[in-house]
Amino acid sequence: MSAATTVRAFWEAIDRRDWDALGRLLADDVVYEVPQTRERVRGRAGVVRFNAEYPGEWHLTVTTLVAEADRAATTIGFASPGLPDQTGIAFFTLDDDGRIARIEDWWPEPYEPPADRAHLVERW
Amino acid sequence: MSAATTVRAFWEAIDRRDWDALGRLLADDVVYEVPQTRERVRGRAGVVRFNAEYPGEWHLTVTTLVAEADRAATTIGFASPGLPDQTGIAFFTLDDDGRIARIEDWWPEPYEPPADRAHLVERW
Repeated sequence: MSAATTVRAFWEAIDRRDWDALGRLLADDVVYEVPQTRERVRGRAGVVRFNAEYPGEWHLTVTTLVAEADRAATTIGFASPGLPDQTGIAFFTLDDDGRIARIEDWWPEPYEPPADRAHLVERW
Repeated sequence: MSAATTVRAFWEAIDRRDWDALGRLLADDVVYEVPQTRERVRGRAGVVRFNAEYPGEWHLTVTTLVAEADRAATTIGFASPGLPDQTGIAFFTLDDDGRIARIEDWWPEPYEPPADRAHLVERW
């Protein structure tokens, strides 16, 4: 499978809560990192569990996917009842067997823009 | 130029404050958006000015670049004296002339991880 296909299957498996399918896409020694919190999970079982235990009746949709042969970047829309919709951004590296070896996961939050550039922008 | 080459040249032009070079990489009607602040800048002159007026003696380094033919995603390390180092994430779409037509720019901030997953992760 191409990185694009594998990464799309990764998000589909998570959205379906298909933890066996998710596990088959991951390298044994996959590393998952959240740089904003300095959290790291090592290994297939840990990464599957991290996703399986994520609380809420959430669903996700892939909104952007950029892929090379063995790397990809995605944005997802993440919706969970009672919570504001969020955008997640992830970068993936695949190993020589086409399994996901590294995931870097980002969750940007809304913030107030600096007032000193208000003359340069429009808002929506 | 490929999207990878164009996007690398985009960041190099910004880091060098070479606003003429930056302008040559942008479509006339380029759109720059910061979804976290709901800010939008339309047009080459506006996008150049937005970057030219960004305050500080900052420098940036491209840390990840994933590119297809006409799309790319990057992470940059952004360092400005007196401020914490930041990571910027951007997604680019190029037009048929190979110019940058759309930029989506994200600036994730550190946050405290939920306590209920502390048993699933290591910290760094």
